[in-house]
Amino acid sequence: MSAENTAGLFLKACRREPVPRTPVWFMRQAGRYMREYRDLRERHSLLELCQTPELAARITVEAAQKLGVDAAIIFADLLLPAQAMGMKLEFVEKEGPVIAAPLRTADAVRKLREVGDGELSYVAESIRITRRELAGKLPVIGFSGAPFTLASYMIEGGASRDFAETKGLIYRQPQVWQELMEKLVKVLSHYLETQVAAGAEALQIFDSWVGCLSPGDYRRYVLPYSQRLIGNLKHPGVPVIHFGTGTASLLELMRQAGGDVIGLDWRVDLGDAWRRVGYDRAVQGNLDPVVLLGPMENIRQEVERILQSAQGRPGHIFNLGHGVLPTTPVETVQAAAEMVHNFRFG
Amino acid sequence: MSAENTAGLFLKACRREPVPRTPVWFMRQAGRYMREYRDLRERHSLLELCQTPELAARITVEAAQKLGVDAAIIFADLLLPAQAMGMKLEFVEKEGPVIAAPLRTADAVRKLREVGDGELSYVAESIRITRRELAGKLPVIGFSGAPFTLASYMIEGGASRDFAETKGLIYRQPQVWQELMEKLVKVLSHYLETQVAAGAEALQIFDSWVGCLSPGDYRRYVLPYSQRLIGNLKHPGVPVIHFGTGTASLLELMRQAGGDVIGLDWRVDLGDAWRRVGYDRAVQGNLDPVVLLGPMENIRQEVERILQSAQGRPGHIFNLGHGVLPTTPVETVQAAAEMVHNFRFG
Repeated sequence: MSAENTAGLFLKACRREPVPRTPVWFMRQAGRYMREYRDLRERHSLLELCQTPELAARITVEAAQKLGVDAAIIFADLLLPAQAMGMKLEFVEKEGPVIAAPLRTADAVRKLREVGDGELSYVAESIRITRRELAGKLPVIGFSGAPFTLASYMIEGGASRDFAETKGLIYRQPQVWQELMEKLVKVLSHYLETQVAAGAEALQIFDSWVGCLSPGDYRRYVLPYSQRLIGNLKHPGVPVIHFGTGTASLLELMRQAGGDVIGLDWRVDLGDAWRRVGYDRAVQGNLDPVVLLGPMENIRQEVERILQSAQGRPGHIFNLGHGVLPTTPVETVQAAAEMVHNFRFG
Repeated sequence: MSAENTAGLFLKACRREPVPRTPVWFMRQAGRYMREYRDLRERHSLLELCQTPELAARITVEAAQKLGVDAAIIFADLLLPAQAMGMKLEFVEKEGPVIAAPLRTADAVRKLREVGDGELSYVAESIRITRRELAGKLPVIGFSGAPFTLASYMIEGGASRDFAETKGLIYRQPQVWQELMEKLVKVLSHYLETQVAAGAEALQIFDSWVGCLSPGDYRRYVLPYSQRLIGNLKHPGVPVIHFGTGTASLLELMRQAGGDVIGLDWRVDLGDAWRRVGYDRAVQGNLDPVVLLGPMENIRQEVERILQSAQGRPGHIFNLGHGVLPTTPVETVQAAAEMVHNFRFG
């Protein structure tokens, strides 16, 4: 296969065009599980890495090349737009940024800045450098959190088990929620636009925590805003991947909200899920990240099972169901990429 | 409605017999959100409360009567069988028991005791006292963790985000996993048998964390054991409720594993879920516990939406999708019970 063909695999699969083999990349493919990344983190904070375009680009490129995957996702943090809007990020040892003074009141929402061109331009710059360094050999994916997931971080202050504060705000102050979501749609639309202008060839919207919601709450409080955000991102040739976890009941609604590609976690069978999403969309996923901590034989079984369940239908991008876990051996991730590369439908 | 009719509502609904109104109880209806319980906890540890039948019975009865619900679930902890099998429980402030030396090796699994009649007899005794005190006015539900969920606590040592240790053991040491599950099936079968012998009128199997698994892993590593456990519990007139969270993709498989009633969390639409489970089973659920932290108007909307989605079909028991949260106002839980009681299909 020529280098040119390989470079196009991921984007072709996003468009559901036939490809000679299934393309693969891994969410959080650059991160703490890689020695090169840990070395950099000893000298720089996570924010410094994100906000120094040369370093962010280097992390992005090195990880993609080391793994031999078919796409590079720009190294950045989901919470960067929250900082740009005026929230203070703090760092917890090994955990990345958390928000010390979470968003809880109408007044705090009103005070959030609508980010202009300057504040997040370092991400666009990282993308420009990455594009230059990859020189067309691999496509570059830009990304942001979805409005719900970013809002939940801002309201909870970090990860949450039950999202009680977020849902509490939704139920008790629906107008404040609406105002927050509208602000986030504006900020994220602009943020993702600048990423496309800088050369991002695909965009992924991470609605990582949306699976905490009932289908009714998703429909009422989330769908309209995700739909508006994705609707704002109409760039011919720049597909949008719409991803979430715990979304087994939400797939039809996520499809309705939009996205050329629907991301699947491991809690659904890929074949069933694709049927429900509809074959006029591509799908991405769906290996359990924990499988990569186990023995090679089980990894091979699972990788092949997932590829088989796509039945060779054009429009499957292999990925995990969520990010690579920090304890994952790099060699295992490389091996998984190779398994996908070597697989052929019999 | 006569008192006799009311007492029978819950069991009738479990059998899918027509009832004049939908019965309701709440998972974790006795707990930290109740002042009476907090008062007791100031003087006794959680284990002391569980292991002193008079106190456990008192907590069980007081909570059910205070809320005006249609069933009393025995006050106990999911981890009691782990202690009886030889594992050390420790207490973390406000969090309940955790396991300081989690189960990780074949040797540790081999050393687990198969509990005899004595070790857990205090739970049976709590049930006997509760039955006597309730004098037929309310049915008493016994319970245990499902083999998977109990195993995951034993292996992780407490709550987990990704269940990496549990899945790691499954993938790397499938024979050890099998041995552990077989032991747990024996112990839990016996434990639940003694509860029925003591007067439990229904049993709930909590597979609370099973939603972390892919459907394939559930089918291979969990279903056979849950099926064996439930198969061991054939007592005419003692229905089994099979509950889990995050189970949107697992409902058909859970049905296959067994249970007269399938428990639903809030991430599924009750109408859809019941259709998938099959109308030859009853269902229980499915209000998001976080809704009870919000305003009354929203609670009423959600309660009525759930009741409507059951369409008046016999065999729905109203409940939350998981336990009452510690910050829930008692009055709100009472009000929710009353809403269910007062609801009539138009």
